[in-house]
Amino acid sequence: MSPTALTIIGERINASRKSIARAIDDGDEAVIQHEAGMQLDAGANFLDVNAGIYPDREAQILAWLVRTVQSDLNAPLSIDTTNPDALKVALEAHQGKPLINSISLEKERMDSLLPLVREHSCAVIAQTIESGHIPVTAEERVDIAVQLVDVLVKAGLDAEDIYIDPVPQPVSMAGDAGMETLKAFAEIRNRLPNIHILCRVGNVSFQLPGRSLLDRTFLPMAMAAGADTAIIDPCNNDIMASVAAAEALLGRDEFCMRYITAHREGKLAGKD
Amino acid sequence: MSPTALTIIGERINASRKSIARAIDDGDEAVIQHEAGMQLDAGANFLDVNAGIYPDREAQILAWLVRTVQSDLNAPLSIDTTNPDALKVALEAHQGKPLINSISLEKERMDSLLPLVREHSCAVIAQTIESGHIPVTAEERVDIAVQLVDVLVKAGLDAEDIYIDPVPQPVSMAGDAGMETLKAFAEIRNRLPNIHILCRVGNVSFQLPGRSLLDRTFLPMAMAAGADTAIIDPCNNDIMASVAAAEALLGRDEFCMRYITAHREGKLAGKD
Repeated sequence: MSPTALTIIGERINASRKSIARAIDDGDEAVIQHEAGMQLDAGANFLDVNAGIYPDREAQILAWLVRTVQSDLNAPLSIDTTNPDALKVALEAHQGKPLINSISLEKERMDSLLPLVREHSCAVIAQTIESGHIPVTAEERVDIAVQLVDVLVKAGLDAEDIYIDPVPQPVSMAGDAGMETLKAFAEIRNRLPNIHILCRVGNVSFQLPGRSLLDRTFLPMAMAAGADTAIIDPCNNDIMASVAAAEALLGRDEFCMRYITAHREGKLAGKD
Repeated sequence: MSPTALTIIGERINASRKSIARAIDDGDEAVIQHEAGMQLDAGANFLDVNAGIYPDREAQILAWLVRTVQSDLNAPLSIDTTNPDALKVALEAHQGKPLINSISLEKERMDSLLPLVREHSCAVIAQTIESGHIPVTAEERVDIAVQLVDVLVKAGLDAEDIYIDPVPQPVSMAGDAGMETLKAFAEIRNRLPNIHILCRVGNVSFQLPGRSLLDRTFLPMAMAAGADTAIIDPCNNDIMASVAAAEALLGRDEFCMRYITAHREGKLAGKD
């Protein structure tokens, strides 16, 4: 697939997947490097690495994942951890500009992370969570997003290195969860035109059947509302076909050339 | 499929389809009635009838289509013609409240149609077209929509019988055509909360390959922006799966029960 206008964070190198946990346990670099290469070929801009299921050895494993991928491929990683020590070790192992996944508006954690962000010239995913509270309404999300951007810009980050994540919640839990997130995307895009907005697609479909269908339906709605970045599996042809169609429909694919090329090459999952 | 929150106008009884033209030429009522029944079973709320490819006999054929469907099934039809004489004859043949597809902001045509609308207590699709000019921007569409609703309400129509069609244009012709239509949906919904907004889905994908993929990607974006009615083929499982997913995601399917039921019954095209 040709590069998309959407910035794609490939989600496959996550130890909660059995094949990744097995590769970690076996120290099998080839499996990790294969997963990395596949995702880059499919159009990923960042590769997420997550070893959260190993709380006792998270720092060591995360650093190993970073070195394993980057010894083979020149790709920026998204360091996905809630553990500040693991983050520090992984950032030290990382070459180039990493993406931190993620920070939120929690003073204590922010104070420990900002020096690391500055030291490693990171880009940052900033979740609209304040002191452990995930907002319900669009307004709360927008309010926290504005505060986050203020703090991060004051800390010296460029707007283009800030990825606001409005933290979609599952529609299985609250019927208006999807709509509130879409409203948040639109209003954050309106208030903060220069930052990135991330859609953590899989959140909305949590605990429902047919998640792939829900995810590939939600992402175009999120893109129309202002999201320009997504955490997805770029090797999932159905969701990549949705992305290609959405970009053509939203005028982010000049003369629809990427869409037409992908269709001609048989890369769209659509039947006609 | 259980009834959707989306109002669906089934598009299959259109003489531009070869099987329908053949049925018309043969006077084969069973084919027309079968197409009508299939669409109602699949969730259509209105059945569109179009005989525009027969300019010389359009009135006679349209009236025959109306009588043929309604002698078998109690379903409201969407009378799809630009010919006022054909419309008049078809309306006289119609039982119950018909939907006129369509009127626009053209004084001469409006003057000839409004008496018919009143006489037959019609619902009306009103296109945001003024004197033959199809708008380019969202603002023009909104402006015409406001004028149309004003004229129609003054003529005695209830808001719930007005279906505004912002006339999407093909993204193959202009890259911003999709985005301008989505903006128009949102602003018309904002300005005119009580009227229906129609998405004529197939317009945007005109002259592109993979139209089914484009259509099922655009409709959820249109629904998120405020469209509550669509002209589609309800027998296309892919687009109906998109509708079911979009309604679950947008909070228009309480506890996602219709979506979960459709998934359990194997009616969603999604692979997982």
